[in-house]
Amino acid sequence: MEKDENCLTRVEQANKIAVERIMASQPILIGVKPAHEVFPEMKKNSIFHAGPPVAWRDMCGPMQGAFIGAIRYEGLAQTEEEAVALMEQGKIEYSPNHNHGAVGPMTGMISYSMPVFVVKNETYGNYGYCTINEGLGEVMRFGANGEKVITRLKWLEQVLAPVLDKAIKKAGGVNLKNIIAQALAMGDEMHQRNVAASLLFYRTISGELSQEVAGREDAKDIVEFIAKKNDQFFLNLAMVASKAIMDSARDIPHSTVVTAMSRNGVEFGINVSGLGSRWFTAPVNMPEGLYFPGYTEEDANPDMGDSTIVECIGIGGFAMGCAPAVVNFVGAGSVSAAIKYSESMGEITVTRNANLPMPNLNFQGVATGIDISKVVETGILPIINTGIAHKKPGIGQVGAGIVRPPMKIFLEALRAFMKNEGL
Amino acid sequence: MEKDENCLTRVEQANKIAVERIMASQPILIGVKPAHEVFPEMKKNSIFHAGPPVAWRDMCGPMQGAFIGAIRYEGLAQTEEEAVALMEQGKIEYSPNHNHGAVGPMTGMISYSMPVFVVKNETYGNYGYCTINEGLGEVMRFGANGEKVITRLKWLEQVLAPVLDKAIKKAGGVNLKNIIAQALAMGDEMHQRNVAASLLFYRTISGELSQEVAGREDAKDIVEFIAKKNDQFFLNLAMVASKAIMDSARDIPHSTVVTAMSRNGVEFGINVSGLGSRWFTAPVNMPEGLYFPGYTEEDANPDMGDSTIVECIGIGGFAMGCAPAVVNFVGAGSVSAAIKYSESMGEITVTRNANLPMPNLNFQGVATGIDISKVVETGILPIINTGIAHKKPGIGQVGAGIVRPPMKIFLEALRAFMKNEGL
Repeated sequence: MEKDENCLTRVEQANKIAVERIMASQPILIGVKPAHEVFPEMKKNSIFHAGPPVAWRDMCGPMQGAFIGAIRYEGLAQTEEEAVALMEQGKIEYSPNHNHGAVGPMTGMISYSMPVFVVKNETYGNYGYCTINEGLGEVMRFGANGEKVITRLKWLEQVLAPVLDKAIKKAGGVNLKNIIAQALAMGDEMHQRNVAASLLFYRTISGELSQEVAGREDAKDIVEFIAKKNDQFFLNLAMVASKAIMDSARDIPHSTVVTAMSRNGVEFGINVSGLGSRWFTAPVNMPEGLYFPGYTEEDANPDMGDSTIVECIGIGGFAMGCAPAVVNFVGAGSVSAAIKYSESMGEITVTRNANLPMPNLNFQGVATGIDISKVVETGILPIINTGIAHKKPGIGQVGAGIVRPPMKIFLEALRAFMKNEGL
Repeated sequence: MEKDENCLTRVEQANKIAVERIMASQPILIGVKPAHEVFPEMKKNSIFHAGPPVAWRDMCGPMQGAFIGAIRYEGLAQTEEEAVALMEQGKIEYSPNHNHGAVGPMTGMISYSMPVFVVKNETYGNYGYCTINEGLGEVMRFGANGEKVITRLKWLEQVLAPVLDKAIKKAGGVNLKNIIAQALAMGDEMHQRNVAASLLFYRTISGELSQEVAGREDAKDIVEFIAKKNDQFFLNLAMVASKAIMDSARDIPHSTVVTAMSRNGVEFGINVSGLGSRWFTAPVNMPEGLYFPGYTEEDANPDMGDSTIVECIGIGGFAMGCAPAVVNFVGAGSVSAAIKYSESMGEITVTRNANLPMPNLNFQGVATGIDISKVVETGILPIINTGIAHKKPGIGQVGAGIVRPPMKIFLEALRAFMKNEGL
């Protein structure tokens, strides 16, 4: 296609604004609230899910399993059969998290009673929301829905969330971007590795939390849930920080910057700044990676979750060079291969964010602002580090790997963009 | 000099034993006890100090300042003048930490009432000891001796140490080598950067500590002292772990492995396994590095402290390639320069320790077992990351940098070794 010089300048200017907003954003965690308190549109029978829109009958196994679990967790049904009936009869109103300023890992369930982190983008005033990470193993984000899963979610709702909310408020909020910047110097890329970030978050509220739990019999359980038992605790915070950041770059006319990448286990979808909240979707790919002992590719569910929002700000797969220890976990080859991934992402982004330097890349900033036209021109697809879910609901994570979005969605988005620009 | 083939084999075998002991060692933190409880030889007027032996009149400013502070802390004198008089009259018995299985950073004071970490080398049964890190700024390890310093030391003794001791015991002890291994994947080299290691240590006892402080008004102070206020908290734990490890490699006949490197601010000293506890000393060098705002080389005290014990096991400067964020702090140039330092240390050591892999060097183990004959043959001196003290007592740290031991001590040690071997 021919290049229109005016358009190029217009697009460049729009993209400059987009990345300036991304880089100027300050995502502050201000509390933990029940979902129904922060989403005015939420009803007792509302459920938000990961990825672009998807109908019940088209959902993958883990997503259906998670819906069944969320319905039971809310007491809307007692059994799996009752829950399925509600879904089939259209009694549950479901929609993507991204429609509500929210994100969730893997199946990404957010229902009425679930506590969500509340993050304010202090620079632009918008908010982002995400649930609390449940930990590893049998968890709802991988489609598990048994008693153990629901009991843990009730503990998060009734025990952890109120204490955490108070500690966060007492600490005066937590600047998540500062933690992300520090953790990049501590071996995390914040998609498949959040060891340092989880500890840095914990340290920030450690004193206040110790006061909140003082004298409680479950003090140890509460402290260890955050500080010790879950190396991926910060994943959901990295996601909600990224969501609050990326939403500030939405709806900039003429901008080709990707504002969201997301998967529902069946389709991969993106939003583009200049094209509002329109989804461009295509079937998801299967991650390539390493499987936990006893599992193979045969067991894997295709790519799923809103967690790819972290790659939109330049972390996750984009910052793999910061996290040599994740290389073996996701099967990315050598450390130098990981550094090359981080370097190559600069070819499809608008800029590098000097506020998020990568020490292992001589303090070069992370690649920021995925540009659909650069993706199409170079043929380089965004690199994503991801967990791999079992395709059957309830089994959980079976591996971790690397995945790319389908090229088709960038082509279609660019076509729509050109049309929109009158080209 | 001619090589004696029998000797070479004998030395190689001895060095193999030395590094096998280093690598098999498991340093477990088992508690925190007052110094006089763990050192049977300690009297009320005993003070242990960093480095090889040094007389009062020959000590540098910060070392003299620290002695004055320690004497006042113990209530042996009320004023500086009284403390100086006690030293001049020979009323204080002082000796190097290393003579007592102990280490201390910078001036390295250990006096009668000070609490010390107790680390057991579970593999070989020997013990190591080190004080609790005081934090940054005006502290005794840099020679400060005012009321603020002594008040903080009393708080460590009376408040923190008993609580920490209970939490450590309740947690069943803490394997410090595991933490060191993890922190190498999280941007620490554990001499000038201990951010991750400090948090990893804290996480290990977080639940138990929350129970110990429950209901206390100073719960927040105690938790934050460890979790939040001092990124170098783990330095003293890395040192005592290294001491407990290295002492297991002492006194192996025919071994040329360095078992301790240490500085008293005037002289740099080493011990060599096959030569027992004999010190080989020469004047210390001045670190080359970066100074905090307002300070220059003019303000710097020469190289000081027992902290170089960490380089003996292969961390600190030897593992600088793991800690890209430390590169700017110590003025080591680029990340690739740091990686080259870590690589070059392999030329003067007996082996690489696969249990302490460096992710940034494609998981190559740290260089372990400094061999005096290799140092002399290659002319490559061990690389040390170090803090720089102000030369006047009481001002504190003024910078950080890189330093090497004087070559003379390796030459003299090798000469003594050859003589000992009858060569």
